[in-house]
Amino acid sequence: MSNYVFNFEEGGIEQKLLLGGKGASLAEMSKIGLPVPEGFTITTKGCLNYYEVGKKISKEIEDEIFDHLRILEGKTGKKLGDVNDPLLVSVRSGAAISMPGMMDTVLNLGLNDESVKGLAKLTGNTCFALDCYRRFIQMFGDVVLGIHKYKFDEIMRETVGKNADKSTELSEEEYVKIIDAFKVKFKNEVGFDFPQEPEKQMMMSIEAVFDSWNNDRAKIYRKANEISDDLGTAVNVQAMVFGNMGDTSGTGVAFTRNPANGENKVFGEFLMNAQGEDVVAGIRTPKEIDELKQVMPKAYDEFIKATEILENHYRDVQDIEFTIEREKLYFLQTRTAKRTADAAINIAVDMVEEGFITTDEAIMRIQPEQINQLLHPEFIEAELENAKIMAKGLPASPGAATGKVYFNSEDVVKAKDAGISAILLRTETSPEDITGMIQAEGILTARGGMTSHAAVVARGMGKCCIAGCGEITVNEAEKYFIIDGEKYYEGHSISLNGNTGFVYDGKIKTKEHELTGNFGKLMTWVDARRKLKVRTNADNARDSAVANKFGAEGIGLCRTEHMFFEAERIISVRKMIVADNKEERVKALAELLPYQIEDFKGIYEEMKEKPVTIRLLDPPLHEFLPKEEEGIKVLAERLDVRIGDLKDKIALLSEFNPMLGHRGCRLAITYPEIYEMQVEAIMIAAIEVSKASDFDIEPEIMIPLVGHIGEMTIVKKLIENIAEEVIAKLDYKLVYHIGTMIEIPRAALIADEIAEHAEFFSFGTNDLTQMTLGFSRDDAGKFIEEYREQKVLPYDPFERIDFNGVGKLMKIAVEGGRSTNKDLKMGICGEHGGESESVKYCHGLGLNYVSCSPYRVPIAKIAAAQAVIEEEE
Amino acid sequence: MSNYVFNFEEGGIEQKLLLGGKGASLAEMSKIGLPVPEGFTITTKGCLNYYEVGKKISKEIEDEIFDHLRILEGKTGKKLGDVNDPLLVSVRSGAAISMPGMMDTVLNLGLNDESVKGLAKLTGNTCFALDCYRRFIQMFGDVVLGIHKYKFDEIMRETVGKNADKSTELSEEEYVKIIDAFKVKFKNEVGFDFPQEPEKQMMMSIEAVFDSWNNDRAKIYRKANEISDDLGTAVNVQAMVFGNMGDTSGTGVAFTRNPANGENKVFGEFLMNAQGEDVVAGIRTPKEIDELKQVMPKAYDEFIKATEILENHYRDVQDIEFTIEREKLYFLQTRTAKRTADAAINIAVDMVEEGFITTDEAIMRIQPEQINQLLHPEFIEAELENAKIMAKGLPASPGAATGKVYFNSEDVVKAKDAGISAILLRTETSPEDITGMIQAEGILTARGGMTSHAAVVARGMGKCCIAGCGEITVNEAEKYFIIDGEKYYEGHSISLNGNTGFVYDGKIKTKEHELTGNFGKLMTWVDARRKLKVRTNADNARDSAVANKFGAEGIGLCRTEHMFFEAERIISVRKMIVADNKEERVKALAELLPYQIEDFKGIYEEMKEKPVTIRLLDPPLHEFLPKEEEGIKVLAERLDVRIGDLKDKIALLSEFNPMLGHRGCRLAITYPEIYEMQVEAIMIAAIEVSKASDFDIEPEIMIPLVGHIGEMTIVKKLIENIAEEVIAKLDYKLVYHIGTMIEIPRAALIADEIAEHAEFFSFGTNDLTQMTLGFSRDDAGKFIEEYREQKVLPYDPFERIDFNGVGKLMKIAVEGGRSTNKDLKMGICGEHGGESESVKYCHGLGLNYVSCSPYRVPIAKIAAAQAVIEEEE
Repeated sequence: MSNYVFNFEEGGIEQKLLLGGKGASLAEMSKIGLPVPEGFTITTKGCLNYYEVGKKISKEIEDEIFDHLRILEGKTGKKLGDVNDPLLVSVRSGAAISMPGMMDTVLNLGLNDESVKGLAKLTGNTCFALDCYRRFIQMFGDVVLGIHKYKFDEIMRETVGKNADKSTELSEEEYVKIIDAFKVKFKNEVGFDFPQEPEKQMMMSIEAVFDSWNNDRAKIYRKANEISDDLGTAVNVQAMVFGNMGDTSGTGVAFTRNPANGENKVFGEFLMNAQGEDVVAGIRTPKEIDELKQVMPKAYDEFIKATEILENHYRDVQDIEFTIEREKLYFLQTRTAKRTADAAINIAVDMVEEGFITTDEAIMRIQPEQINQLLHPEFIEAELENAKIMAKGLPASPGAATGKVYFNSEDVVKAKDAGISAILLRTETSPEDITGMIQAEGILTARGGMTSHAAVVARGMGKCCIAGCGEITVNEAEKYFIIDGEKYYEGHSISLNGNTGFVYDGKIKTKEHELTGNFGKLMTWVDARRKLKVRTNADNARDSAVANKFGAEGIGLCRTEHMFFEAERIISVRKMIVADNKEERVKALAELLPYQIEDFKGIYEEMKEKPVTIRLLDPPLHEFLPKEEEGIKVLAERLDVRIGDLKDKIALLSEFNPMLGHRGCRLAITYPEIYEMQVEAIMIAAIEVSKASDFDIEPEIMIPLVGHIGEMTIVKKLIENIAEEVIAKLDYKLVYHIGTMIEIPRAALIADEIAEHAEFFSFGTNDLTQMTLGFSRDDAGKFIEEYREQKVLPYDPFERIDFNGVGKLMKIAVEGGRSTNKDLKMGICGEHGGESESVKYCHGLGLNYVSCSPYRVPIAKIAAAQAVIEEEE
Repeated sequence: MSNYVFNFEEGGIEQKLLLGGKGASLAEMSKIGLPVPEGFTITTKGCLNYYEVGKKISKEIEDEIFDHLRILEGKTGKKLGDVNDPLLVSVRSGAAISMPGMMDTVLNLGLNDESVKGLAKLTGNTCFALDCYRRFIQMFGDVVLGIHKYKFDEIMRETVGKNADKSTELSEEEYVKIIDAFKVKFKNEVGFDFPQEPEKQMMMSIEAVFDSWNNDRAKIYRKANEISDDLGTAVNVQAMVFGNMGDTSGTGVAFTRNPANGENKVFGEFLMNAQGEDVVAGIRTPKEIDELKQVMPKAYDEFIKATEILENHYRDVQDIEFTIEREKLYFLQTRTAKRTADAAINIAVDMVEEGFITTDEAIMRIQPEQINQLLHPEFIEAELENAKIMAKGLPASPGAATGKVYFNSEDVVKAKDAGISAILLRTETSPEDITGMIQAEGILTARGGMTSHAAVVARGMGKCCIAGCGEITVNEAEKYFIIDGEKYYEGHSISLNGNTGFVYDGKIKTKEHELTGNFGKLMTWVDARRKLKVRTNADNARDSAVANKFGAEGIGLCRTEHMFFEAERIISVRKMIVADNKEERVKALAELLPYQIEDFKGIYEEMKEKPVTIRLLDPPLHEFLPKEEEGIKVLAERLDVRIGDLKDKIALLSEFNPMLGHRGCRLAITYPEIYEMQVEAIMIAAIEVSKASDFDIEPEIMIPLVGHIGEMTIVKKLIENIAEEVIAKLDYKLVYHIGTMIEIPRAALIADEIAEHAEFFSFGTNDLTQMTLGFSRDDAGKFIEEYREQKVLPYDPFERIDFNGVGKLMKIAVEGGRSTNKDLKMGICGEHGGESESVKYCHGLGLNYVSCSPYRVPIAKIAAAQAVIEEEE
């Protein structure tokens, strides 16, 4: 028995990891009786061995390859390189996880100066044979020896002029001339003759495919798609069939259903008298698959029947490659079809209704992350055609936006008031920019990563955002930006594609994506299956309404600091911060109280009976103070203090590492009056809304940044004191709950103690990740890319939970918490709460809910349902 | 049986927690037959009950008190308040852990307008009785009702003029006048008459003692001494004996040996015709205990015999209070004597040599932290008398220093070169100040806490440092400082006491503390017992020599960054940092190589065979760049780059949270050439020193800030590559070891994985504390005091390991590490490595060594030996 090489008929689809997707699929098709050209697969194990022994095909594997080649020759009755009846083969890569177009393929292998004659004789078509030969030299040179394809194209044009464009219709002489020229070029480029020995051609090609596993394209693709570098690729050596043997031959690609919208109708295209590469190359325009019915009715019927067999066999939409050689149909590949989010939903729901798959299967067919594109505005496609790309940044928050550029919050608000759509453009945003971010159609920054302030806040708002667009230099003071040396001023129109990161010049019309009824059906099934509740992170009534639309089951995180930045209140906030004593602070806070009451009432009125967790003030106070000279001057005048004193105050509050500074409940230990005001506002709002409704609000008050048990007990006491005071004063008995964030490593380690005093935990995985990994989210951009590149990080831990580190701490906290408080409610409110793998992890941990930005609620729900189904399996 | 009240003879010394120290000691003395006035103890349980039921003595306890009062009256044959033979009692506090002078005492209780006559009759001394009564009114008013003592003193002076100074020698009329005036004052102050009912007096006094448990003095003392607030105090009610009954009476305090130097000779003082408070008050000068021999030979002999009995009984030096009433000796208290570090060592060693205690007991008698004062210079005491205190800061690093003030490193160095002793004064220090810190006698900063840069570095150097001296405003640019509005200029002489935080005006001579041979003996016993090795943190040959002197067994942490700041090399470092590409970086690093080789050779030559762990570069690169405009300008000229470009570079490198930024091994992932240079230097130095000696250096190379397994494997490979290259080039086979810091929470969580690739772990508990607690060491000063105050933190987690949080992570790491690598060597190199409780914790974790600043090596050794002894017990 062979260790490294298998005939197609020896395998099956379950051996994907060993045979690669293509090899397993060819094996499976052979098994179910579809016509597949004969061949064999050198396994991924062979590839790994190739790298282990130092990029060399070992003797053992070489022997097995030749054994199988002999078998193939036996089956086909042809012989590699034979002058009379030559066997031609393709050598194709095939990894376990599909990496379309990322690796290399050699076709027509086995041709040389002798065997080309055999092919001519056999097909009775010398031109065809010569064309095959010239294609082979070109492809072999390109794939195996790195002689760029265009160099051969040039020679072809030099040799036969503009006839080169009709490469299948040249004369014998022209082909011969081209072949000779190709061979000369080959030798010039690599220093040795084009190898005439077919077995040498084969071995060199197999090595080239193995090598292609680690070419840059493949590595980048794997990184982008989170595919392990350790899988290796298999190599399929398969007898050639020819779609280019004249007018009764052809080749094509088809899907068993429409991959763009899911319509249940075979969708595809084909080219007569062509090889696969011609379809891909796009030189000739392929025809729709329907037309094959007219051209070759028998092959068409056979093909349609086979698509049904394949879809039935795999119970999913297939993406099929086929070739017709002189009216005989061959299948070269079938695989599960990639599809748009729309198609994925429609196909899944249709298949359930056709009785083809179960609702569970339908749920499992959806990639949760894909749903993202359905929930945001998109450009009207026709408009995109003439759009000019100005720059590219990070696609920080999906959707499309178009408007005039403004450089600060006030100008955005003014534009908005004047009915102008605005894009906020800044070097980077800070909490001071919140008002502008709310009013803008989209946000563009020159600096900052996927988890910068702009990115995080924009995703929370479901607002299109491109971050870290380094090509842009922004001059906020003089209100212009520069790209490629060209200056653009305030009011210049641009458009942002938050899905791709492209910034376009001028306006491009956008539209809301239309959701079909199938989406609703799917979500019903999802809701019936999942155990995790899905809440949302929303800081105001507006976001709450959006979240409700997407089916949020409550608010898991309402950040009160954003409220502090709006309009008049920031003055009171600043007054409070620069106050010299408690009395002044209390006075300034009293000014804020009515605003906070209104904020909370708005949210309660929108969310009704659904639970709302409000987090007390979290950021360090200096975040609320102006940083620029001008802002400090204005503030000093407004507060009637000396500018020097104000600067001293700001300097005093500044911190070396604000992330680890005087913030969260630490503020409450030193300045209890801030939380006292907030709790008063929460309780008054809850009671007033309860009094006016037929339901009672049950406020969930969350203490941020707890790390020591004393913080929990002191702040809890503070909350209870104020809450009971308000209850007594307004004479309305209201149930309220007190819980804490788990966002400091120490909190996870003493969760058992904390849980004795908390009704709920909410994992703040953003901060927990920063502290557990020692990564500052604001700074890590500088090395995180290099870390991904060198595979220190398999993925961005700010996007997906670092299961091995942060996840362990979460587990300790869950076990600790439940050990002392079996009724403890637990959830997650970090950015990770909307990422599908993280949601599944939270399910596994036994959390009660996840909370994510409004636009990710459906994603989290699907992931939560999938987690249940996966668990049952 | 009683629950809350016990007669003295019912208890014993083992019941300290219940009876308090004084109560247990009185019980014990009764038991061993020493003369103790009769009485009873209301237990700490009674005190806790008092607070539990809302500051009230419950009925049950009250009943028990009166039961015991009746018993006491029975024993003494006297009756509280009796007009003929009144029982007088003292009511004294007594907590489980001694808090000298912190809580309150009432004497002579039971006197009123009637019983004072009884006392007069009984003693035949009306003046004495009246004096007792006036003392009682004053003390009761002060202790029980808060009428300040001085108010009574004033009245006494108003009433009897200058005779008030001789309070025991007044006439009957005078006493009566005073008593009347006191009673009037009493009523004026509190609104009711001085209570004549003795039982009411007693109950009010007991309540006052319970209340005194929570007075401010007591709370502050407990905080400073880390005594739990939950212990409560006992109250002792004891029949009065009178040292002021004339010339055959007296009172005194004595130690069984000298508590200042340990000399084996009773040491103490007494006053004839006086009560205990007179000894404390210091109005009359007490006499040395020897003189008692002349005055009352019988009582003296009895006393000396009793001191022997007590020292033998308790097997330790005792601190004894006694009273002689008409030639009859009574013991009122005995407790283990507090003593200086010198005395502690001498007494312990003497007692071993006397065959009195074992060497283990001697070791346990030493408070490791106390040793600190022996190892640093101190002021010559006589010089201190006229010294003027200018300001007070935090005692950041012990010792004494005197010199002229300079405001930057260069000026300090210049002064030093000119033979002038210098004190470096800065607002706060940064790594740029290292040279100056090395050359200065002491360091003074206006800002920063106990773990600020100045404090940490100074402790490392064993250099006197006062940090965070907020009264000082420093103008570094114009070279002056201001205290209380007064300006002092460069060159002004000051003196620093690093043990107390006092800054003195002018020069005060200092001397080295003399260590006796007993210290050496003790350390021999310590070394024989401990299992933990004790290494030191030293960055150069000079520190290494100091550490060797103190018995360090190797270097556990050699920080290479400090080397980068010296003289010429900082230019090369900066050149390297601002380089635009790898080539330029490599060139700049090549300039540093010879310096680094010399650095390491110096250390190896000093440490010889002892192990030396060198940590590769740790801080973020921007720490090496100038921050001020002027420095940037100079650097730009020196490097011949445009100032604007340099500023851009500096801005680009700046970080929001440098603690969590691009530092440690993260630098090695992006700029491998830095570590390559360092490893080359380490290996060359080790080989050159090995070649020149009869021993072989085994370098221990430590990777900082590892959090992901990929960091460990990539940097390890880098080290191995360079090390093998150097070994091959210099043709000298050298064994080297590669290990890592465990300082990121995630590293502790994946310690099992890391240990597969590491030969040793070193816990970097400074950073581990920062990240686990989410406390920035540089910023936490702002709230850490408030946290101590409100008892959120029982102690400073940057001084002592946070056992409950950081400790848990360390445990996870130790278990994980050993699970995959049983030969893993583990140690600690954070500041905590020299703190005694932390050292004991490390012993418990099973670490192999601790590493601390040179001056703390003996402390760590004693703690390590104590840990072994405690474990065996």
